[in-house]
Amino acid sequence: MTGQVRDAVRTRRALLDAAARAVVVHGAGVSLDAVAREAGVSKGGLMHHYRSKDELMAALADDLFDQFARAVEDRIDPADTAPGRRLRAYVRATFDDLEKTQDAVEQTTLMATLSAFPEPARRAQERYRRWNRTLAEDGVDPQRILVVLRACDGASIAPLFEGPLGPEELAGTRSLLLALATGTGPLVG
Amino acid sequence: MTGQVRDAVRTRRALLDAAARAVVVHGAGVSLDAVAREAGVSKGGLMHHYRSKDELMAALADDLFDQFARAVEDRIDPADTAPGRRLRAYVRATFDDLEKTQDAVEQTTLMATLSAFPEPARRAQERYRRWNRTLAEDGVDPQRILVVLRACDGASIAPLFEGPLGPEELAGTRSLLLALATGTGPLVG
Repeated sequence: MTGQVRDAVRTRRALLDAAARAVVVHGAGVSLDAVAREAGVSKGGLMHHYRSKDELMAALADDLFDQFARAVEDRIDPADTAPGRRLRAYVRATFDDLEKTQDAVEQTTLMATLSAFPEPARRAQERYRRWNRTLAEDGVDPQRILVVLRACDGASIAPLFEGPLGPEELAGTRSLLLALATGTGPLVG
Repeated sequence: MTGQVRDAVRTRRALLDAAARAVVVHGAGVSLDAVAREAGVSKGGLMHHYRSKDELMAALADDLFDQFARAVEDRIDPADTAPGRRLRAYVRATFDDLEKTQDAVEQTTLMATLSAFPEPARRAQERYRRWNRTLAEDGVDPQRILVVLRACDGASIAPLFEGPLGPEELAGTRSLLLALATGTGPLVG
């Protein structure tokens, strides 16, 4: 990357992080002014990178999905050649996130708020369809994919209802879901 | 109930419904003024029933939990005497809700916002511990309870990411989870 491109990447990173914080505080009604303030830039500076609130919200959603998709790819075990290796990587990415962050409430508020905007909602649907396709190509029974994905999502929002999950509970759920993601046959007869 | 008690119950119902709507729109920063406005009463009228915002948020959380607990009890099949009857009723209550409401985004935003308040968060944790105890007493393997509860929660937030779930997908997930809630042995060997 040239220095100029590197600077632009770094600026966009800082703007998206500021936008995420501003959305959590102000909800769907967040203004570009509030995001610019949070980022410590002028509104003009922000709009040089994102020309409208819709464009910024779409970029923020894409960024969250990209980060998760990269986390899954990073966790595919190269030595693991059995069907379901990507589904197991999905479980690992989910639980690594849960062990790392104590801000499940903020993450969920952010996703819920973003999904109120048409373009982020459309992109989320597209990503989910793509996940389902990619995971199915990996040779796992669709029922197993469904239960494991739903349970991963449920574990992600559990801290909302139950407070922070303890390390033992997280480890237990992780290994249970990895085991479910390891069989290839149907889950129920 | 006397007429006076019935009126108070009806008023509280209207106030809680207004509070839920106001929290979805204004987030955690919602004011008692905004709730009173939404309910069409004076702030004094609201505070006659709920003396503070904390008290109102706690009452709102309790109300949501109570409604769900009643929905589960209502769905226990009296003819069903096999272990896991309450877990199966939990699945039915979850999916009946999902089939009925198109406002999953609002429900999740509401729960996420409420859980930012200490007292609702404490009560949510207490309720979840109670669910786990009650469901375990019903004779089902703890791993099955965990996977079914997490998958129910995941299905509840799925419309956030995937848009409204179609009737076929809902019916498929419901019967898969009912089947998982029917076995009593461990889910994985």
